[in-house]
Amino acid sequence: MTVSLEVVSVEPAQDQLRYTFGGGGGEPLVRVRPGTVVELATEDCFGGRVRSAADLPSQVCEFPYLNPVTGPIHVEGAEPGDTLAVHLVDIAPARDWAVSATFPHFGALTATHNTAMLHDPLEEVVWVYEVDRERGTCLFRPRRGGPEVELPLDPMHGTIGVAPAAGEVFASITPGAHGGNMDTPEMRAGTTAYFNVNVPGGLLAIGDGHCRQGEGEVCGTAVEAAMRTVVVVDLIKGGGPAAPLAWPRIESDDFLMSTGSTRPLEDAYRVSQHDLVTWAAELTGWDTLDAYQLVSQAGLAPAGNVVDTNYTMVAKLAKKHLGSAAVVADGMHDRLRETAAAYLAQR
Amino acid sequence: MTVSLEVVSVEPAQDQLRYTFGGGGGEPLVRVRPGTVVELATEDCFGGRVRSAADLPSQVCEFPYLNPVTGPIHVEGAEPGDTLAVHLVDIAPARDWAVSATFPHFGALTATHNTAMLHDPLEEVVWVYEVDRERGTCLFRPRRGGPEVELPLDPMHGTIGVAPAAGEVFASITPGAHGGNMDTPEMRAGTTAYFNVNVPGGLLAIGDGHCRQGEGEVCGTAVEAAMRTVVVVDLIKGGGPAAPLAWPRIESDDFLMSTGSTRPLEDAYRVSQHDLVTWAAELTGWDTLDAYQLVSQAGLAPAGNVVDTNYTMVAKLAKKHLGSAAVVADGMHDRLRETAAAYLAQR
Amino acid sequence: MTVSLEVVSVEPAQDQLRYTFGGGGGEPLVRVRPGTVVELATEDCFGGRVRSAADLPSQVCEFPYLNPVTGPIHVEGAEPGDTLAVHLVDIAPARDWAVSATFPHFGALTATHNTAMLHDPLEEVVWVYEVDRERGTCLFRPRRGGPEVELPLDPMHGTIGVAPAAGEVFASITPGAHGGNMDTPEMRAGTTAYFNVNVPGGLLAIGDGHCRQGEGEVCGTAVEAAMRTVVVVDLIKGGGPAAPLAWPRIESDDFLMSTGSTRPLEDAYRVSQHDLVTWAAELTGWDTLDAYQLVSQAGLAPAGNVVDTNYTMVAKLAKKHLGSAAVVADGMHDRLRETAAAYLAQR
Amino acid sequence: MTVSLEVVSVEPAQDQLRYTFGGGGGEPLVRVRPGTVVELATEDCFGGRVRSAADLPSQVCEFPYLNPVTGPIHVEGAEPGDTLAVHLVDIAPARDWAVSATFPHFGALTATHNTAMLHDPLEEVVWVYEVDRERGTCLFRPRRGGPEVELPLDPMHGTIGVAPAAGEVFASITPGAHGGNMDTPEMRAGTTAYFNVNVPGGLLAIGDGHCRQGEGEVCGTAVEAAMRTVVVVDLIKGGGPAAPLAWPRIESDDFLMSTGSTRPLEDAYRVSQHDLVTWAAELTGWDTLDAYQLVSQAGLAPAGNVVDTNYTMVAKLAKKHLGSAAVVADGMHDRLRETAAAYLAQR
Repeated sequence: MTVSLEVVSVEPAQDQLRYTFGGGGGEPLVRVRPGTVVELATEDCFGGRVRSAADLPSQVCEFPYLNPVTGPIHVEGAEPGDTLAVHLVDIAPARDWAVSATFPHFGALTATHNTAMLHDPLEEVVWVYEVDRERGTCLFRPRRGGPEVELPLDPMHGTIGVAPAAGEVFASITPGAHGGNMDTPEMRAGTTAYFNVNVPGGLLAIGDGHCRQGEGEVCGTAVEAAMRTVVVVDLIKGGGPAAPLAWPRIESDDFLMSTGSTRPLEDAYRVSQHDLVTWAAELTGWDTLDAYQLVSQAGLAPAGNVVDTNYTMVAKLAKKHLGSAAVVADGMHDRLRETAAAYLAQR
Repeated sequence: MTVSLEVVSVEPAQDQLRYTFGGGGGEPLVRVRPGTVVELATEDCFGGRVRSAADLPSQVCEFPYLNPVTGPIHVEGAEPGDTLAVHLVDIAPARDWAVSATFPHFGALTATHNTAMLHDPLEEVVWVYEVDRERGTCLFRPRRGGPEVELPLDPMHGTIGVAPAAGEVFASITPGAHGGNMDTPEMRAGTTAYFNVNVPGGLLAIGDGHCRQGEGEVCGTAVEAAMRTVVVVDLIKGGGPAAPLAWPRIESDDFLMSTGSTRPLEDAYRVSQHDLVTWAAELTGWDTLDAYQLVSQAGLAPAGNVVDTNYTMVAKLAKKHLGSAAVVADGMHDRLRETAAAYLAQR
Repeated sequence: MTVSLEVVSVEPAQDQLRYTFGGGGGEPLVRVRPGTVVELATEDCFGGRVRSAADLPSQVCEFPYLNPVTGPIHVEGAEPGDTLAVHLVDIAPARDWAVSATFPHFGALTATHNTAMLHDPLEEVVWVYEVDRERGTCLFRPRRGGPEVELPLDPMHGTIGVAPAAGEVFASITPGAHGGNMDTPEMRAGTTAYFNVNVPGGLLAIGDGHCRQGEGEVCGTAVEAAMRTVVVVDLIKGGGPAAPLAWPRIESDDFLMSTGSTRPLEDAYRVSQHDLVTWAAELTGWDTLDAYQLVSQAGLAPAGNVVDTNYTMVAKLAKKHLGSAAVVADGMHDRLRETAAAYLAQR
Repeated sequence: MTVSLEVVSVEPAQDQLRYTFGGGGGEPLVRVRPGTVVELATEDCFGGRVRSAADLPSQVCEFPYLNPVTGPIHVEGAEPGDTLAVHLVDIAPARDWAVSATFPHFGALTATHNTAMLHDPLEEVVWVYEVDRERGTCLFRPRRGGPEVELPLDPMHGTIGVAPAAGEVFASITPGAHGGNMDTPEMRAGTTAYFNVNVPGGLLAIGDGHCRQGEGEVCGTAVEAAMRTVVVVDLIKGGGPAAPLAWPRIESDDFLMSTGSTRPLEDAYRVSQHDLVTWAAELTGWDTLDAYQLVSQAGLAPAGNVVDTNYTMVAKLAKKHLGSAAVVADGMHDRLRETAAAYLAQR
């Protein structure tokens, strides 16, 4: 069988990188039709400037030029109230190294600008990881002795989202109803993310690749890496999983996932669980309290990030519990899976 | 090989059930030597009074006689600053049914006495689950139509802990540094829980068995069941994993887990992650910032409960990442595993 | 003595009202030189569309066209890192009525989009206040019986701020480091507000007049009114009270005030208190811990709002406690007081 | 007119001081009849052990022997569901000095055991205040130079409460529904505090006198002093202001005040505002939403403490706004005021 795929490649120049969702005034980086496979290059959260233990982020990076994203991608025909479906086909580290760092006043176990305290900042330290793409590992080397640890690669994007509603423009480090810097390890290849379209074209942007990340991203940074990433972008007209979608959702082969990004963390939990309860009720026809009950017994609740300007919680429900009711948007995820398979077979 | 096991059985009468950690004035339910296998019966969180959809908890239960625990178990020789190790050998539902319910002003997606609002309470609804111990399932029946769901049994105890420090006495529904109502599904058979000893004998108590529970226990109750539970109780003199242990820790064959129970939820996250970072540094000899880094990339952070008087987060690290350094208290968990195996072989 | 005052009047047309801080692409509403007196008209938070008990906000208002602001006012010579000083000369209700309302999913004692719950919204109710400018009162009429209450007018602006940093654009309902919808009753005539300049011209905007407001604005809306407001806008080059100013500050004849707008509320408290401690140390030459001590014993901490997208706390310190050290920016507040007096004498 | 007053004096010996609300097993310190004037001595929060800048609390104090309270006072006839009314007649510093201090891992602008971080503790510093009872001042001397500040005395008790419900026992540093360590400057002479009776006799205890305190008590300690305090203790049978009273309330000549003590701080705000709304509705006959509206426009919301194991917010409403409806428990406050006046006239 020959499948005709529309494939577009985008590799932004340094000065084309974006640092916000929304805004920017001008042209999208690229315009694509729904169903297009987009190959894109993303820079790491430090803009590639942290390359050795001597490159302290606070010295080599320049605020607000942090966490660049590649985009925006204008999806033809996307109108407010539609849903953008973004299937992550492949996320591959672009280099044989990656970095992580503590950053002054950033992280969950340190005073920050919001959790303001009188402490001096924690020491700023950089860790350089060796990335072995063949073996699928990245190597943690403690800076001050003790055992090294070879960790499996589990590449993902910390930042993915669309232009916000109501003319707002958010720094790329902010997660919210538009997606953005949710920093959840669930955003890995094989999943489909759903975003509400707030402006014509949706204006998708992606960045902040991680070779892997713990839940919560406690020190504030993951194993940060430039990525070669492939996505399929599709469109659900007139609604989609819900109409309109209040918060980003993620679907994998096995799980339905809702996200909530706000503060305090219990409110992020509430948002994500509320959305999952509503979603399960929609799919199954259960009464809301019945869905509340089922999610209470079968739902998972991993932290996404507890370090960014908003915190992110993920609510997960295994699709097997919903049986044949677990079909979202007429099987969008499965169709995108097929597109992805066709692309990978041809690549 | 013949292993000589000391086995004690306790089945409290109705009027011997306890509703607090600490207090009570009098005698422990039982005194055991370190290393003893304790077989115990626990009642469900409703005191067994909710048996059908017509038994609304607010009508059939009487505050504060909720969430009874079995205990306290006095461990001979346990002194403040020691660590109690409690290995969960087996947790078996005692009946062929279990219940769950919404409860007025309780749960994460409802106004509560602390998150005070002007809404009327959500409707109080009871769900009765059929428990099939042979097949290892419990059956969710929606009250108002839609598909039924057969969920796998994954029995655990919501409530397990010791007498608090400083003469405090906490209701059994409160989790904290003494353990208590942490409501984490990680507290299943095969794990070892560690608690700091605050008073002579430690005064362990256990209750609130769940056939299974979602992370966060979002509606406020799990699949609540009376249990037949077997634990091995042991003692680490003069400290243990840390000396003294600030917060309960859990060890399974594969994971080290720290807990934090406080509010807001980000503080529970901070406590649990801080403890895990410290623990990993102790075991490996890493500098604290190196341990912070490794946990940031490899740690997991599931919610325990987001409904009780304190919220609970769990921080998890796979032992494989620490290699040979992942040995806690000279291998206490493995030794208790062996005791458990010997008991189960003889039972 | 004749004082030469530059006075500018701005009354935006309906289609000139703005709904964001930052953004908008185009021209400022007006450009003024530092020291200019600006007379401006502001519409109420409902855009003047709620005029009777029958005008339910959710029906007559159209999201996102809520909380309009008048501006932006470009201040000549203002560069990033400078400080804008805005003295509130007069705030006068423009009509003989004002309104307040509950609004679905908005307020502190109701489920919201962020504190997501399964409750139906509280009932949407509108209260119309009679405003008697002569007597200085507004009349509360309970909708369902019981005593009426004549409350003193204490006019203020809920929303005042500048364009955010880093290209961000925030809805006018959001408070933050740029000011915005702080909703603190301290923002009354006679005070001087300080904002960090983030973009050339600063781009000041003002709206959301309140005839009066309780601390926290618990139901989500105040006694909302269109206003005739007079401000003096001035500029502190190269820094000001601190350089740059991290969060908005307010100065009255008697108090120094710091603000913090974030979530959870304790972080808003931390931000505001941290800023006040730092400010007091700067003015007096005290060590930071000495300033921490003095603020601990003499500081006030009223809530601003506990309902908006960020919560606002205010930290207040009586200037008398600092004696002669309580002089900010070489006496900017006193000078603006004089300009205001001169203006009022001439009006 | 001769008024017959029952006056009891209690001055506990060092070993009679208590460190919990509830518990203790034995006899109350004293039993009094409703209406009795109680003269009592309280020690400061450090047990009087911090007397100079060299006396670091972490060295001279011994956990958990912090924050001693005087009591419990058993009020004859008090039964669960009744309300205890405690009128503060006089609070006088017992010595001519008082102290304050930073304390490791305690305070709002520092990492704590709950807001766990990797920072080293802030420096531990003691400030000794000269107390001039004649002039009504306490003198702040910065430790490292800069201006001294003479602050007015405004004596209050940080800790006042009763035995908790349900057999719980809380450390005296914990505020909650039982009162306890609310640390609000509103608890000054001239006010009447109301507490729900949870156990026979109520078991009132008082301590933690402050010469004065800022709102929030940001560094964690106030101007701590031993006190000579006089209270009138009275009883409202079968209910009182509400039946039963969910959270402590305070009444002054001018204000009705509700308290909420929990975390996060917005929940403390919610609790206190919810209680004030309910209270105002009860007194006036307003519908709840009408009371919500009035409190929104006329309520005050100062922080109590943002440093203890629970945070405290106070919700205040001027009695003048309620007119003749502002009569609590048949005028209990006014009657206690008269008793106090009679006592003071005779003393």
